[in-house]
Amino acid sequence: MIYLDNNATTKIDEHVLEAMMPYFQEEYANPSSIYGFSKKASDAIKEARGVIKDFINAKDEKEIIFTSCGSESANTAIKGVLTYNKSQKHIITTKVEHPCVLNLYQTLEKQGYKVDYIGVNSDGDLDLEELEAKITADTALVSVMWANNETGVIFPIKKISEIIKSKNKETKFFVDAVQAAGKIPIDVQENGIDLLGISGHKFHAPKGIGALYVNSKTLITPLIVGGHQERGKRAGTENVPYIAGLAKAAELAQDGLKYEATEVKRLRDKLESNLLKNIYNSRLNTGVSNRVPNTTNIGFEYVEGELILLHMSDLGICASSGSACTSGSLEPSHVLRAMNVPFTAIHGSIRFSLSKYTTEKEIDYVTEKMPEIIQKITAISPYQDELAELKKHKIANGRY
Amino acid sequence: MIYLDNNATTKIDEHVLEAMMPYFQEEYANPSSIYGFSKKASDAIKEARGVIKDFINAKDEKEIIFTSCGSESANTAIKGVLTYNKSQKHIITTKVEHPCVLNLYQTLEKQGYKVDYIGVNSDGDLDLEELEAKITADTALVSVMWANNETGVIFPIKKISEIIKSKNKETKFFVDAVQAAGKIPIDVQENGIDLLGISGHKFHAPKGIGALYVNSKTLITPLIVGGHQERGKRAGTENVPYIAGLAKAAELAQDGLKYEATEVKRLRDKLESNLLKNIYNSRLNTGVSNRVPNTTNIGFEYVEGELILLHMSDLGICASSGSACTSGSLEPSHVLRAMNVPFTAIHGSIRFSLSKYTTEKEIDYVTEKMPEIIQKITAISPYQDELAELKKHKIANGRY
Repeated sequence: MIYLDNNATTKIDEHVLEAMMPYFQEEYANPSSIYGFSKKASDAIKEARGVIKDFINAKDEKEIIFTSCGSESANTAIKGVLTYNKSQKHIITTKVEHPCVLNLYQTLEKQGYKVDYIGVNSDGDLDLEELEAKITADTALVSVMWANNETGVIFPIKKISEIIKSKNKETKFFVDAVQAAGKIPIDVQENGIDLLGISGHKFHAPKGIGALYVNSKTLITPLIVGGHQERGKRAGTENVPYIAGLAKAAELAQDGLKYEATEVKRLRDKLESNLLKNIYNSRLNTGVSNRVPNTTNIGFEYVEGELILLHMSDLGICASSGSACTSGSLEPSHVLRAMNVPFTAIHGSIRFSLSKYTTEKEIDYVTEKMPEIIQKITAISPYQDELAELKKHKIANGRY
Repeated sequence: MIYLDNNATTKIDEHVLEAMMPYFQEEYANPSSIYGFSKKASDAIKEARGVIKDFINAKDEKEIIFTSCGSESANTAIKGVLTYNKSQKHIITTKVEHPCVLNLYQTLEKQGYKVDYIGVNSDGDLDLEELEAKITADTALVSVMWANNETGVIFPIKKISEIIKSKNKETKFFVDAVQAAGKIPIDVQENGIDLLGISGHKFHAPKGIGALYVNSKTLITPLIVGGHQERGKRAGTENVPYIAGLAKAAELAQDGLKYEATEVKRLRDKLESNLLKNIYNSRLNTGVSNRVPNTTNIGFEYVEGELILLHMSDLGICASSGSACTSGSLEPSHVLRAMNVPFTAIHGSIRFSLSKYTTEKEIDYVTEKMPEIIQKITAISPYQDELAELKKHKIANGRY
């Protein structure tokens, strides 16, 4: 099995599992209890909070809230800011946010919020002028992902925060960093971020744990109300094993950033350039630079993505055609649509996302097999005339 | 270490851990992915949903939503019903609900809801006449716990649902079953329940997993909006290992109900009767019957609970003076206050909560040590006259 769908989820690192194990059957106390037995559990949380603080360079441990997932982090941040500050009713986000965030904004629109969705160009880069023009005195929140889950495109977070603060100092800035954490450095202070969400299972911690950064100047109404946990900002007995696991995963991710930027990137680039070279009806759906190191999104023209994935699955290769949350839907990706990826390629676009576990041998195998798969599917495409034209055109341009 | 604080949290059962392990490093796929590799993860969720459905005797698997904890289940149920149905603004709950639920109602009061808190008698039993009298055409929700976390007292859920439905068929009935699940049988159909929350870590699954039952006739607005998971009722990549663990824990709990009702109860009763017999300044804070089998709440008069707990902790005995969520607070228990436990006993009340792992040897040890601890602390109590009076009175009544 070759797993190239690490933007959907990742394998748990063995050291993460090791870090979790003591809290299942040995140090299982409720960390809120007062007897000595609870000390190791409460210490584990305290220590983990410090690790996550360092991981994103927050100023204070108190700014870190543990949550159950990236979606909870986003819901807590967004609803938390808007519920606390009821006077402003305008939100700005992007057309290419994760479906989780977009769905939430659609429900907020029904509740009377005005939401502007900023567009991107064909490389996937955000239209910063449009963003700047939209910020008004009524803008409660700007919400931008750090890296796109489908394309890997990185948004210029520091520049965006500068634009926001230059236009409206009261506007809060939420960054969905779920696809950035573990792939590129995260620094909330350097980048002027008010709220930031991460999800453990995107960087080798388990599914079911996330964190939310809320800077000390940003006030939120909690989403899950109840006990005093997380300083009253998120009720519920703490998931001690996963919190310990998240911290270990963050440490490993921090140490592994250089490997991501060099070796993972090298393998991604190798796969990408080989597929583009060896498959005439392929195209890179993004610009080349300005992406997280592990992701490439390639469109195969005049063929159907789900069919490609099934053929890949038969060979034990896992990848995806969009976010896992929307898989099964026949709608073409909203991200690629926003980028104006041509109709001919949008349905046949595949995201390959690597991890530190991806090997050269795996990349070589996929490089060998993908042309065979695409050729087989292309042969039964009803668009043979267009394909012949495309091939001729590419050959004429020396590109195949 | 002797752990008699199983209402705070429990040790993970080894079979639960075994059930979880394959989903950390082997079957780690995102269950929403379409390739073959995701099948075992999605099958695990499907199977777990069936197990939880059976565990609470729901009619349909679609009525089960996996959540990250009991607090999330309660928040989802309560806010979900009230947000979906905005026309009714009246809620009824009890004075002895878990702090998580009470805190939520206090925030809802600030948002314009009218909340009635039904009282209990000195045995801890709910005032059903008061409940009946309070239900009006405006009552959106009645929210009652199945078993109290501090006293173990069981509320007559079936009778309550009958009262509700006889007064207002539109009123929804939410039951916080966090302290009932795994201790007594749960049957949502038999008991006329609309929504019911459970938490895995109270019956030997990990902290960080819960479930919410929402019957098919009850509509809710989701708390965590985003992806399509849980049929659109709870976004976020599913915590596959813990979901598998929750299901295994539910199976084990179901099979273990008889053991709870006999052996755990026998040990609880043994501990309780010995402490009441051997410590003259002790009293049972509840009635004798009508309780979950594992819990006893005993008041030690004229002494301080936190001090008792620290002495117990020194001997490696874990118990608590209230819910873990409020530990550290010096306020006397809201549950015992609602029961009019005398001032002389309320500050010195200890909850002992057993589990299937509690042994006779442990109970014998605690039975031996508790009188020594209480005697030592009683000796330094400033209430020596009252204590002498109490002792005389008890001896006179043949009760010591």
